[in-house]
Amino acid sequence: MNSSLPLKTRDRILQVSLDQFNEHGERAVTTNHIAAALGISPGNLYYHFRNKSEIITQLLESYQTETLRLLSVPTDRPLTVQDKLDYFQTLSQQFWKYRFLHRDIHQLIETDDAIRQRYPAFARQVMIQGRAIYRGFVEAGLMNMSTAEIDALVINVWLVMTNWSNFLVMSGHIARNDAISERWVRQGLRQMVFLEGPYLNAENRLMYDTLLNTYGEEGFFEHPVTQPATSV
Amino acid sequence: MNSSLPLKTRDRILQVSLDQFNEHGERAVTTNHIAAALGISPGNLYYHFRNKSEIITQLLESYQTETLRLLSVPTDRPLTVQDKLDYFQTLSQQFWKYRFLHRDIHQLIETDDAIRQRYPAFARQVMIQGRAIYRGFVEAGLMNMSTAEIDALVINVWLVMTNWSNFLVMSGHIARNDAISERWVRQGLRQMVFLEGPYLNAENRLMYDTLLNTYGEEGFFEHPVTQPATSV
Repeated sequence: MNSSLPLKTRDRILQVSLDQFNEHGERAVTTNHIAAALGISPGNLYYHFRNKSEIITQLLESYQTETLRLLSVPTDRPLTVQDKLDYFQTLSQQFWKYRFLHRDIHQLIETDDAIRQRYPAFARQVMIQGRAIYRGFVEAGLMNMSTAEIDALVINVWLVMTNWSNFLVMSGHIARNDAISERWVRQGLRQMVFLEGPYLNAENRLMYDTLLNTYGEEGFFEHPVTQPATSV
Repeated sequence: MNSSLPLKTRDRILQVSLDQFNEHGERAVTTNHIAAALGISPGNLYYHFRNKSEIITQLLESYQTETLRLLSVPTDRPLTVQDKLDYFQTLSQQFWKYRFLHRDIHQLIETDDAIRQRYPAFARQVMIQGRAIYRGFVEAGLMNMSTAEIDALVINVWLVMTNWSNFLVMSGHIARNDAISERWVRQGLRQMVFLEGPYLNAENRLMYDTLLNTYGEEGFFEHPVTQPATSV
């Protein structure tokens, strides 16, 4: 374990930057805000990162590496129902952890050459690994899907999952700086269950129907919404 | 028909602003850019709109009104298969027309009190009307879905449709300032077909399978991507 001071400060800068970007949006947060939140001088911060762009690039790098690792398929055994739940739960946490990226990625792609060059390759890799996971479920006899259905499902699952937390903010269900509650994670998983449900084999379908009684609620949009997200 | 000069200038400002926001992103476009693109003086622009925020508010207003109108259900006849196609095609065009909104809405919600207050009510209304449309398809015998399945499908369809064009940009398939080609509209419709497919009755399912041969292609992510979106 490397506990040298420079490394620790660097990691703390990344963690606090991530928290600040998530809470206030990348646009509203400056390196001065980050230094102040850390109780360090701007000069100390600049020793580790020349500017905000370098911090964002590093966070995006970590996000991509972690996400692709979460999407890896075990090679020594067939996939199980538990794997299916694990993928959804770890990915939900991952998307919430980096939610500023899914909100601000369009802007970042526009203003940062390195991100614009690299993001499409990441997106393509996500699709390829997502396809491998669903093929694994089909091979394990848990799902029935054609190749075309797999490809379409991967894209739909990706779009719904990555936009879920921001959708909750936009639709007034949660405020941006809320910790995401168990309730909303489950409501998101409920959406996934419905996306996959039609392709599940009978036995797993039964399990899914049971899950629906624990994941989220019907009448989602009848509920009074929470306080709209407050501005920074 | 009102052809008085002030109204026409006002409409032209809105149209050119929409084009500029779509092409460059709301953040990069100033009222001076808009005036220059129109060949009018900034003073003339300010006569119609005090600032960029007023232009955005008006565009969002039009977007919401038009979208809810597109989501209305005919009351004098049952829904048909043609209605299903029409909804998807008109909505696809609508989302492409206002694509800057779906890209920048998080930022707009954050910085504009009026938008933050009003958007959740719009999102809720979309869900309520979307539900009414799917109930209409169930009542007309075209689809088989439980209430819970309808609600989940409405949210999934909304998330996929509204994020589709930006997803294409992010994944490197199109550049932001491209006109969206027929090919990509069809690829988006293909995603919709897969979302709805499992709930279609046998006869309509057959029609959908035929549509899949005309809508979009398999192996979407194997294709070499187009030039990444160029920056402003």
